Amino acid sequence: MPPCGSDALRAEAPGLARLGPAGTLRAVEIRAYDETDWPQVWPIVRQIVRAADTFPYDPDMTEQEARDIWIERPPGLTVVASDVGRVVGTAKMGPNKPGPASHISTASFMVPGAARGMGVGTALCRFALDWARAHGYAGMQFNAVVETNRAAVDIYERLGFELIGTVPGAFDHPDQGRVGLHIMYIAF
Amino acid sequence: MPPCGSDALRAEAPGLARLGPAGTLRAVEIRAYDETDWPQVWPIVRQIVRAADTFPYDPDMTEQEARDIWIERPPGLTVVASDVGRVVGTAKMGPNKPGPASHISTASFMVPGAARGMGVGTALCRFALDWARAHGYAGMQFNAVVETNRAAVDIYERLGFELIGTVPGAFDHPDQGRVGLHIMYIAF
Repeated sequence: MPPCGSDALRAEAPGLARLGPAGTLRAVEIRAYDETDWPQVWPIVRQIVRAADTFPYDPDMTEQEARDIWIERPPGLTVVASDVGRVVGTAKMGPNKPGPASHISTASFMVPGAARGMGVGTALCRFALDWARAHGYAGMQFNAVVETNRAAVDIYERLGFELIGTVPGAFDHPDQGRVGLHIMYIAF
Repeated sequence: MPPCGSDALRAEAPGLARLGPAGTLRAVEIRAYDETDWPQVWPIVRQIVRAADTFPYDPDMTEQEARDIWIERPPGLTVVASDVGRVVGTAKMGPNKPGPASHISTASFMVPGAARGMGVGTALCRFALDWARAHGYAGMQFNAVVETNRAAVDIYERLGFELIGTVPGAFDHPDQGRVGLHIMYIAF
């Protein structure tokens, strides 16, 4: 896999993603996360982690823990989706596992409740796929997609991910009890 | 899941595992790892990590990195299999993921080349399953079993794990090229 220093990241970001006709956003710029974005990123991460219905993260995580988990270091990358300066989503991407498995990428996406249904998640996922292809990865794997998170599953399937399998009851949903976690994959 | 402090760990370890008739070992004591075990554990981890044919770990990891990865803190546990004071294998176990997925356990096992084929891996896996059941987990998941590691796959299948799915080509084997990574699971 080619090295990806900060120059390479700057060269490929920002990107502009057009949103669907239902959107009230005009267009979303997806660009590398900057430290000054944290005051807008943390409320998004906090909302999603505290809800505990889509991510296998500790719902009580502190702000510092969230920062350590969400902000990737090279060779990974964290990005934000920005609508005229307002952060309406964030994603992180990088190798799924180290060593002999490091040619497979992974990514995670967070879109706050107020910005859902407008194509931000799809735009972030497309960006991550383009990024992973450009950096020489052979595919992208999601390790734990909550099966009741239909919005996410639909986006991934539409973009070409296949279902590898489902671990039954592996996620304790606050409303729906124990539901499955999908492993999903796309080869490049 | 009930808390599992060091008292609980001491109470359930050590355990004695009888080995099959082919073994040249008499019996293996499986007990909680102690800091004084590291000089015997590190050569095992180093051998397996450097070979890069069974674990998705960085083959160049340092001794300190290996220690950080292999030695679990509560609620996880690291154990050694000991044959009259000689460490012939090691395992780690704990929650597979945090938060809403923390009721599913995971485990990893390492047996050095010289001690293979004598039932040590099976004994370690049985120990991990007993430990996970005793600590209230609902199942155990393996996230990345190299499909060419038949010895491991056979043990897991014999002990009741099912194949959830295989990510094709996700592991770059030094001799066999890109082979699949199995996700395996057993419900308790």
